[in-house]
Amino acid sequence: MKIKCILCSKTNENHWVEAMKFYEKKLKNYCSIEVIEIPDLKNTKNMDQKTIKTKEGELILSKIAPNEKVVLLDDKGKEFTSLQFSNYILQNQNQSLKSIAFVVGGAYGFSDEVYKRANEKMSLSKLTFSHQMVRVVFLEQLYRAYSILNNEPYHHE
Amino acid sequence: MKIKCILCSKTNENHWVEAMKFYEKKLKNYCSIEVIEIPDLKNTKNMDQKTIKTKEGELILSKIAPNEKVVLLDDKGKEFTSLQFSNYILQNQNQSLKSIAFVVGGAYGFSDEVYKRANEKMSLSKLTFSHQMVRVVFLEQLYRAYSILNNEPYHHE
Repeated sequence: MKIKCILCSKTNENHWVEAMKFYEKKLKNYCSIEVIEIPDLKNTKNMDQKTIKTKEGELILSKIAPNEKVVLLDDKGKEFTSLQFSNYILQNQNQSLKSIAFVVGGAYGFSDEVYKRANEKMSLSKLTFSHQMVRVVFLEQLYRAYSILNNEPYHHE
Repeated sequence: MKIKCILCSKTNENHWVEAMKFYEKKLKNYCSIEVIEIPDLKNTKNMDQKTIKTKEGELILSKIAPNEKVVLLDDKGKEFTSLQFSNYILQNQNQSLKSIAFVVGGAYGFSDEVYKRANEKMSLSKLTFSHQMVRVVFLEQLYRAYSILNNEPYHHE
């Protein structure tokens, strides 16, 4: 199963760039992973939040294939434990799903169109994380999921 | 109010070291913050998990002052939203608390003695994070809390 991560706005702080590379590299031992960063919109000063979300949404949707399962990382999504999340990955694999896209939105969240296309929503925490940090937390969790599925000693219950 | 962060094991990955520095520097604009890293125990190969937790616990307790409030970052702790956490910080400030210590444990969690000394437990997520990552996620959240209390535009609800 291919894992696609669609991330709004470029990772700009060097420590986050390095942390992402670190987990991407580890994940490549377990799955086919593609990380797509959608650059920040330009000239947003005169745009309201809704317009920004709509335009970002169009870019997100353009990266999603018709048969792909889409999971939004969203404050109001389902919270998993790490074990539950590893089971979630396994279940999708077992259903012979070819590709699953996890999407991290921009600072203002997702447009209605993106919500409509989404199959599921998951939340990493009740806390709000910076959108730079969310992506790293998510990749670490994905790595943890695969390490659990492969009985490796990374995760302690 | 002084914020003390007691962290078991050294931060070793360079991206996490840099991320911690980044938030520590930002936090110094808002509060007096002290980050104490407790180095990994040596020769743990022949120790069971309970012994490791007890020994780590003794080191943790040695860093805590008698009147300090102690909050453990613990899987089974209370989950806050970022807004609730900023209110929590404010409430403690308003009670003229001089110092609050947040403690991130080692890979196996806390000893009974540390649980006994703790005033509260908080959880960052239902997910398990690496203990390297927890500290960065926590510092970002602390920075977010102060930025909310100071009406700065970092946080979007």
